[in-house]
Amino acid sequence: MSSFSSQSNQNNEEMDINSTSLIPLHQTSTRKRLDNKRETICIFGTGDFGRSLGMRLLKSGYPVVYGSRDPKNTTLLPSGAQVFSHVEALNTSKIIFLAVHRENYEFISALSDQLDGKVLVDVSNNLKMNQYPESNAQYLSQLAPKANVVKGFNTVSAWALQSGSMDASSQVFVCGNDNRSKQLVMDVARSIGLTPLDQGSLLAAEELENYPLQLFPMWRLPLYITAGLTVFFFLYYVVLKVIYSYVVKNTDQTYLIMISIPNHIFPIVSLILLGLVYLPGVIAAFLQLYRGTKYKRFPDWLDRWMLCRKQLGLVSFAYGFLHVFYSLVKPLRYASYWSQVNYIVYQVQKNTTSELKMEWAWRGDLFYAFGILGFFVFCLLGVTSLPSVSNTMNWQEFRFVQSKLGHVTLLLCTAHAAVLGWNRFLRSTMYKWGLPPGYMLSMVIPCIVLILKLILITPCVDRTITSIRQGWERRRNDSGNLKV
Amino acid sequence: MSSFSSQSNQNNEEMDINSTSLIPLHQTSTRKRLDNKRETICIFGTGDFGRSLGMRLLKSGYPVVYGSRDPKNTTLLPSGAQVFSHVEALNTSKIIFLAVHRENYEFISALSDQLDGKVLVDVSNNLKMNQYPESNAQYLSQLAPKANVVKGFNTVSAWALQSGSMDASSQVFVCGNDNRSKQLVMDVARSIGLTPLDQGSLLAAEELENYPLQLFPMWRLPLYITAGLTVFFFLYYVVLKVIYSYVVKNTDQTYLIMISIPNHIFPIVSLILLGLVYLPGVIAAFLQLYRGTKYKRFPDWLDRWMLCRKQLGLVSFAYGFLHVFYSLVKPLRYASYWSQVNYIVYQVQKNTTSELKMEWAWRGDLFYAFGILGFFVFCLLGVTSLPSVSNTMNWQEFRFVQSKLGHVTLLLCTAHAAVLGWNRFLRSTMYKWGLPPGYMLSMVIPCIVLILKLILITPCVDRTITSIRQGWERRRNDSGNLKV
Amino acid sequence: MSSFSSQSNQNNEEMDINSTSLIPLHQTSTRKRLDNKRETICIFGTGDFGRSLGMRLLKSGYPVVYGSRDPKNTTLLPSGAQVFSHVEALNTSKIIFLAVHRENYEFISALSDQLDGKVLVDVSNNLKMNQYPESNAQYLSQLAPKANVVKGFNTVSAWALQSGSMDASSQVFVCGNDNRSKQLVMDVARSIGLTPLDQGSLLAAEELENYPLQLFPMWRLPLYITAGLTVFFFLYYVVLKVIYSYVVKNTDQTYLIMISIPNHIFPIVSLILLGLVYLPGVIAAFLQLYRGTKYKRFPDWLDRWMLCRKQLGLVSFAYGFLHVFYSLVKPLRYASYWSQVNYIVYQVQKNTTSELKMEWAWRGDLFYAFGILGFFVFCLLGVTSLPSVSNTMNWQEFRFVQSKLGHVTLLLCTAHAAVLGWNRFLRSTMYKWGLPPGYMLSMVIPCIVLILKLILITPCVDRTITSIRQGWERRRNDSGNLKV
Repeated sequence: MSSFSSQSNQNNEEMDINSTSLIPLHQTSTRKRLDNKRETICIFGTGDFGRSLGMRLLKSGYPVVYGSRDPKNTTLLPSGAQVFSHVEALNTSKIIFLAVHRENYEFISALSDQLDGKVLVDVSNNLKMNQYPESNAQYLSQLAPKANVVKGFNTVSAWALQSGSMDASSQVFVCGNDNRSKQLVMDVARSIGLTPLDQGSLLAAEELENYPLQLFPMWRLPLYITAGLTVFFFLYYVVLKVIYSYVVKNTDQTYLIMISIPNHIFPIVSLILLGLVYLPGVIAAFLQLYRGTKYKRFPDWLDRWMLCRKQLGLVSFAYGFLHVFYSLVKPLRYASYWSQVNYIVYQVQKNTTSELKMEWAWRGDLFYAFGILGFFVFCLLGVTSLPSVSNTMNWQEFRFVQSKLGHVTLLLCTAHAAVLGWNRFLRSTMYKWGLPPGYMLSMVIPCIVLILKLILITPCVDRTITSIRQGWERRRNDSGNLKV
Repeated sequence: MSSFSSQSNQNNEEMDINSTSLIPLHQTSTRKRLDNKRETICIFGTGDFGRSLGMRLLKSGYPVVYGSRDPKNTTLLPSGAQVFSHVEALNTSKIIFLAVHRENYEFISALSDQLDGKVLVDVSNNLKMNQYPESNAQYLSQLAPKANVVKGFNTVSAWALQSGSMDASSQVFVCGNDNRSKQLVMDVARSIGLTPLDQGSLLAAEELENYPLQLFPMWRLPLYITAGLTVFFFLYYVVLKVIYSYVVKNTDQTYLIMISIPNHIFPIVSLILLGLVYLPGVIAAFLQLYRGTKYKRFPDWLDRWMLCRKQLGLVSFAYGFLHVFYSLVKPLRYASYWSQVNYIVYQVQKNTTSELKMEWAWRGDLFYAFGILGFFVFCLLGVTSLPSVSNTMNWQEFRFVQSKLGHVTLLLCTAHAAVLGWNRFLRSTMYKWGLPPGYMLSMVIPCIVLILKLILITPCVDRTITSIRQGWERRRNDSGNLKV
Repeated sequence: MSSFSSQSNQNNEEMDINSTSLIPLHQTSTRKRLDNKRETICIFGTGDFGRSLGMRLLKSGYPVVYGSRDPKNTTLLPSGAQVFSHVEALNTSKIIFLAVHRENYEFISALSDQLDGKVLVDVSNNLKMNQYPESNAQYLSQLAPKANVVKGFNTVSAWALQSGSMDASSQVFVCGNDNRSKQLVMDVARSIGLTPLDQGSLLAAEELENYPLQLFPMWRLPLYITAGLTVFFFLYYVVLKVIYSYVVKNTDQTYLIMISIPNHIFPIVSLILLGLVYLPGVIAAFLQLYRGTKYKRFPDWLDRWMLCRKQLGLVSFAYGFLHVFYSLVKPLRYASYWSQVNYIVYQVQKNTTSELKMEWAWRGDLFYAFGILGFFVFCLLGVTSLPSVSNTMNWQEFRFVQSKLGHVTLLLCTAHAAVLGWNRFLRSTMYKWGLPPGYMLSMVIPCIVLILKLILITPCVDRTITSIRQGWERRRNDSGNLKV
């Protein structure tokens, strides 16, 4: 990862400049303007982040003073900033940004008294999650107990500060025990174009320090499930299509693993995942119904499952998307072209014209219609799950889309699979080596969900579950409940 | 709707947690931190919303005091909060959140004197729109005339408050007659991570209370129009394709209603809707031209029409999208495969090889090229109408995309339809039972729009309309007009 | 452009109302509410912008006073506002918005003394970029040297202010030399629902005035490159396909310019552009490696190249998208249908059945599989480059997507092209008139990028480049560096 980091930062830089309509800050403005009204900010540390932060602060009109061990030999600092020794720098400002690695924190304990009442901002990150027993910010507050330590700015990159582009990281999470100090730091963040978010006391520092090291934490479980299902069905279909052909018919069908077999795997796994998106909600409803209250916590596994539904849904959509294009490409493929030509030549030689079989026409068209409509509603779900789109909806609307349309998608996709199957499940030739075709396996979970959902929307069950969700409890009916 | 509500809230909860990069608030932090600097907040009502709000406030460092009729028997409150009687609770705080249903408001009138000068926040919602003659907040201000009633927070759900995820509802609309009180409430909203939006005086409370009960109000008219057109053209094509075949040729073509007929309806309705998107703009321009000023209001029907253009455009795009996939699926369908095979077998038996007809090749390729390009520009329009994308554009750019590209889309899609028609409109066999084919009907509105637009962009007309839109009036030329 | 402006504004108006969930401000509320707590705002100029701004301010509770040359004959002002002479109006308020064209600024110099200490907000725009030697705001500060001139609000349109919809322009860029005055103006912006962004001193005014006149400035270079490549390959293929056929085989192939030739151009240009997206990053890495530091500026051409990578990528994606649909439409086209029929008829007449050629089946399926997967990953890149999606990711995640997935896309698309070529480059018949087929030309840049990237990710090179990007320099190793 780290190998691409700086390059990607640059990458990012330009992305943000373009994608936000932020006007690049004026380069020369720092010298001429009269910023005597903004308070001086002190930065300890003249490394990459310290420099970038200073540059940014200067551009927004803050006088910046660097504190350095060796003030005379400090180069590369942004023009307009002053450099003093740590103690001197400290005295010029109420807010000190500490932009050094945790390993170099010891010098702070010597300044402990001078830091009395100052706001000390810890912007550090670690290289690994939970690298130290306590967070850097808490360690710092031990070294300087009289200072008001605030954790923040660690989710912002040096490059983003330099370039003035804030798109992928406009949010600055801030935490600290002293509210006024936190407020001061949030004001600074706001005035340099960032969006500060109060995250509570210094206890949250650990999470804040772990945050930038995370790589799609919510996606892990869904991707593991997807990978497991994909591998299983791949092997299943290699057995059914390639090995079976080889053993029984002695034909080489290995080329199927490029398109045909993936195009069986994608829809099957997609449908199973879509079922898994809506299964926990149904289970939760039955659990609430059984318990007669919504105020008991769900078991942990259910909670964790519910928390990754969006990701499951998006992976399901991705597989559905692949299925669509793998299917559409079929008439372009040599293998299908070849089999079509051969069929026609065979027909011509037999000199027969076949009748249009109405059942086949109906079934085929029904199959494609369900598939396209399912894909369409799935696209709607995908678009409405974009943050900027879901932001424009109220709860009622969001519910409608994600629950109603979601179940419609599940219904359409299950129907798509069912029409494919039709009455083929009756024919024993479908069960090669006794194995059921994959589409049957794919329909198990969606059918369970749909049946349970059907029970839940019957008027009497629906009424009970609605009251429970409005705060009603079977034994004690709370007065003054408000809102669904 | 209500049957899914809570489940969907949970659904939402996880969605937001993931889709915003909000770090879950630290669970244990409420106990240890020293939040003596934030003012105490009082909450009347220990129902679902009251509890969630209290939990949220506590997490952000506010001391929370509940007022309850029966302080001793109140359970399930967030740890850290205190419970008193209404009067006692009232005295601890300047801001009181009233989290009870409107039906339980009477007790407030007894507290009227103690509420003198306090900020009383009405967070209530009703079950139906315009359920009561006056808004809940106005009713409340009658019960407690000396209190400064502020309406707000009613668009936020209890679940969103609890989970700390604010994606689908980060906006808190606030209104009230006293600006200072409103400001206090907005500050509270801001510090618990919400985005307050001032909506003016308490008269706006009615709208605020109706807002969460709305279900896509702007979509209603476009969807009705679409439904009407869809049903009309469905019947039209059932007559043309199924009944005509049955009556005249005595063949059963019912299977066409799955794919073939929808694939006639989608493009036709899509093109008509696209025409309807740009027609009101053209009408408005001619109206301004005729009136010689832009300062007269448009007639109501035109206003309403203009207000639903985005929705019309999106429905048109959805139908276009379906048309694309219904068309691409054609070579996969059994019916088209069958007719192709039969055609070839017939050709072979006749022992003829046909020549490549250049006109057909040109026309076919032109038809598909216009279609794909139209779909492509339509996709561009769709992407740029995403809020987060349109936010990155300035007016000039937004105009360019939505007006210029929009008319290009209309032109391409109309050309797509025209090439399909080619010279077929000359052949009388096209008019089964005297009815024109659907594509002709679909082109009427787009052609009107394009012709009128052509007139508007002629230099002399363009010059006049531009001045009018810059504020110039035919009779009186205003000095000091600014901006287009 | 200007001809559509106002219409598009209206267009926009409704768009925003719908896309933000902003509740339309209450129409009648301005009259009844008691807004005596907000400070009076003065507006000079009763043109379109002045009126809209006043209306908006009134709705948000500000008393509004207009200053006019001829107070008695001023019509069309929002109800609730007062109109005085310039001097009288001036005395009622601390903040004066100057909503007149620059050409009418002279009257300000007469008011110079009365404006002492006042905040004078310049909201003007020009008709052309850099129309005057100095910015309007700087010119204004010369006319009224004692006033605190603040530039701002010029990026907001009159229509957006009137309609209360702020979607495409919620950001208000503000600059000025006096921080307190700037703060006052930013507060006003915030309280009428806009998002103010401090852009520094009045020197930035020029950029602010140019900003609304820009039309996709970042897109210019990418679009020029794309246009150049498109024209070149169009001519190349016209020679290869149409002229060659005509000269050598004397057949008319002009119909190919509709679908076939574009479908050669799109993938070729798309792949070249995708290569150009990742080439500058690789060059930059080698440059840093050579220089041993990241603190030297890149040459200008590289900087400019890097700044348009996102646009290059999006154009590449657009061409890829067109390629997908131009390809999928193939089986629907008359020309390919005709050639298929002819081939079959020919086969039947020869009375041969061809064998399934395994190499062809493999190659074809591999070709389509790479293509679809490449398109899929490309779609992922496109979705994650949406501002609202990239906002939800931390740096680590953004890097992963844009760098790792980006190179995977490039690899898949290059493989797609390579499989198409297979061993055909060995056959001399491919080189009509000595010209290599286009797919070969398209692979040059991607292959260079992939080879260079391969060198960069070898462990030893990777280690060096990582340290450089963390701030390490070959000669001097900085202490206290923080963050990548």
